[in-house]
Amino acid sequence: MMASSSQVIADTNNNNNVTFWQRFVAKMVGVMLQLKKPAQDDPRRLIHSFKVALSITTVSAFYFVKSLFVCFDKNPMWIIITVILVSEFSVGATLAKCFNRGLATVLASALGLGCYYLVDSIMGGHIVGSVFLGTLIFVIVATMTYMRFVPQIKAKYDYGFLVFILTFCIVSLPSYRDEDLLDIAKRRVITIFTGVLMWILVSIIVYPIWAGEDLHNLVSKNLQKLGDSIQGFGDECFGTSEGKGSNKLNLQAYKSVLNSKQIEESLANFARWEPCHGPFRYGHPWKQYLKIGILLRQCACLLDSLTGFLDSTKTPSEIKNKVQETCIQISKETGKSLKELSVSIQKTIPPCAANPSIEKSKIVAMNLKSILKSGLWEGTNLFEDIPIMTVTYLLLDVVSCTEKIAESVHELSVQAKFKNKDSKVAPNYPNSPPHDLGVHHVITIN
Amino acid sequence: MMASSSQVIADTNNNNNVTFWQRFVAKMVGVMLQLKKPAQDDPRRLIHSFKVALSITTVSAFYFVKSLFVCFDKNPMWIIITVILVSEFSVGATLAKCFNRGLATVLASALGLGCYYLVDSIMGGHIVGSVFLGTLIFVIVATMTYMRFVPQIKAKYDYGFLVFILTFCIVSLPSYRDEDLLDIAKRRVITIFTGVLMWILVSIIVYPIWAGEDLHNLVSKNLQKLGDSIQGFGDECFGTSEGKGSNKLNLQAYKSVLNSKQIEESLANFARWEPCHGPFRYGHPWKQYLKIGILLRQCACLLDSLTGFLDSTKTPSEIKNKVQETCIQISKETGKSLKELSVSIQKTIPPCAANPSIEKSKIVAMNLKSILKSGLWEGTNLFEDIPIMTVTYLLLDVVSCTEKIAESVHELSVQAKFKNKDSKVAPNYPNSPPHDLGVHHVITIN
Repeated sequence: MMASSSQVIADTNNNNNVTFWQRFVAKMVGVMLQLKKPAQDDPRRLIHSFKVALSITTVSAFYFVKSLFVCFDKNPMWIIITVILVSEFSVGATLAKCFNRGLATVLASALGLGCYYLVDSIMGGHIVGSVFLGTLIFVIVATMTYMRFVPQIKAKYDYGFLVFILTFCIVSLPSYRDEDLLDIAKRRVITIFTGVLMWILVSIIVYPIWAGEDLHNLVSKNLQKLGDSIQGFGDECFGTSEGKGSNKLNLQAYKSVLNSKQIEESLANFARWEPCHGPFRYGHPWKQYLKIGILLRQCACLLDSLTGFLDSTKTPSEIKNKVQETCIQISKETGKSLKELSVSIQKTIPPCAANPSIEKSKIVAMNLKSILKSGLWEGTNLFEDIPIMTVTYLLLDVVSCTEKIAESVHELSVQAKFKNKDSKVAPNYPNSPPHDLGVHHVITIN
Repeated sequence: MMASSSQVIADTNNNNNVTFWQRFVAKMVGVMLQLKKPAQDDPRRLIHSFKVALSITTVSAFYFVKSLFVCFDKNPMWIIITVILVSEFSVGATLAKCFNRGLATVLASALGLGCYYLVDSIMGGHIVGSVFLGTLIFVIVATMTYMRFVPQIKAKYDYGFLVFILTFCIVSLPSYRDEDLLDIAKRRVITIFTGVLMWILVSIIVYPIWAGEDLHNLVSKNLQKLGDSIQGFGDECFGTSEGKGSNKLNLQAYKSVLNSKQIEESLANFARWEPCHGPFRYGHPWKQYLKIGILLRQCACLLDSLTGFLDSTKTPSEIKNKVQETCIQISKETGKSLKELSVSIQKTIPPCAANPSIEKSKIVAMNLKSILKSGLWEGTNLFEDIPIMTVTYLLLDVVSCTEKIAESVHELSVQAKFKNKDSKVAPNYPNSPPHDLGVHHVITIN
């Protein structure tokens, strides 16, 4: 009895041990996979981490070398804080933050020093001076904190206002302590300037990450995803069931487009700060990317509505058979044209290659309209077919939305002066949209 | 000639002056209106600004009073930085940030001090020690910077990781300067602790702003907006043209619901940190609000698709006349039930009041289905009527979506133990949904 019970306990312990270790290993593997993911999604994150570490180690080294140390602020904190706080992922974000930090520091220091002299010289540092300074701090902090809620300021200068409050309080307060304020200010400016310069140089020289390039690639990728999704929808709804797995994946691709508004806006915000790089000159039309983004989200919304009808359009019916081929053609051609537009943005060439498929999709849309008008529902059970009718109707909307996207991409190519790199393209047909891609021929559905 | 030309110049100058001043005044009025807007949208922003200013002025006062000053860090910067950086809008956000800052500071200080003793005592501060410390800083900064990209860490602990990098570098570096490190550490901990305590007290005692309450009100308001929009759509699409202005406004109300995902998630994130307040106990089901939010956005997406058909359903037709009344009833009843659900969340009472209108909307939806099945399209021009058919079809979807929302709100009321405050409600029918609101009777449309 004793032996068996102790064995049971040992077994239980063993089991517990195995379970504990198995769980532990499984947990660790899970954590490692999660840690690996950011680098898999974007290897530049790994490079960014090394860049930050490189900058911090370099500025730390200043404090190991005594001869360098004399020029800097006594406390290494300032240079470390500066580098860590301005070390943003992209060059544009870095420059925006440096500008905010620099301007705010200069303005707040000037105001703070002014207050210092006012209170110290005129009021002589008495109790009246303290009360005056306290009131001033109260008013300025309250005003600046409130102004950070104004949307325009929040979007662009939030960090600057934060630094202003901080610097003003710090500069105006130590005036009651016995230190050489000007010497401190001089050393601190040199320290901060060195920190900022260090990161800007590392950021631009060592494998620079450009917000503008990211925006450009994001819009191009989103066009590609929409193209994939539309073709995936056509195959899934009307086509054969071959390659179903990849279809389903393609079909879901549009979902990330729906939530891209915020990232696009912040990238466009940062891109404006960046100097010329690659194919992007100063004054590149970044705003036009936002306009394309709005149209892409409209198109993604249509696709979202379309996929909602997938389940209810599975069963074959007479009407479905009649529109099937035309609908597949529409999804194929619009998908193709969106992908061509994506390639044209990627390669910064005029979007002429998309014109033939846009033309084709318009012709097929006309065909679909005449099929719908021909009264194909006579003698059918229409209630069952409302979903399929709705799908065809929404597909016509997708065609006109694609046209708008094409116009918008064309506008971008004109504003950004995209040029044909391929000499084979006829020189008299370089930048213009297809002759009938204007407003006159946009399909109106009502 | 001279006189007239000088008069022309004077006139031009006058005009220029007038235009300049007019422009200046117009610009200033515009700026003032923009400045006024944040307070109009949410008067608590004004209170928050005063709270921040009050805290900063109070901690600054410590530095005016010499006897208090001895306990604190020599530099007032630390207490100012602490208060400014932890002074978040809501109590939850403040507590989350304080936790991050506190834990990161303790861990990084311990690690930094460990490195200090290791390099200073064992390696004797020689060149080997410097290289060792430099390598250590490089590795730790690179690892921590990389880990900030992991989504789970970014969402909750981003600030903690930033503070960790900063504190570790600052604590491990000054070990080469001649200062009493432990005394500095002691003073700094007291200083930072005072700053944090000051803001937490002000944040909780002076007109507290709770993230949980905000989330609760936001979800309730979004229900209200959706209700308004659905009723607005019914009136606009099928109803009379009376009160067109207010209708249009109501109709657009759903748009802000579409973009509420991020704010809901961050509020739920902060709400978990908050102690009991008002009707919210510790462990209030904040996640359930996110589930309701997802359903609300689905419903808003349907409304977005519906409003896309507004223009093409303007013209009266035979089919429209046949479904008109039923559709108006559906939009009225679903709108009413959403508003009742909103009120029940607002008042933290079980959502029984919404049951009658949900029941009615289900009955009307059945009627609509049978109208659609009765073959009302015989002999009509169906191509013109596809939009109206689609609208009726989507309205049926809205009904089933509203049902799901009602179930979800009911679940919330059970989890959060909402109680009837009104004794008139029958005691045997307090918390349960209407008997046929279960999964069995959800209208399936295919």
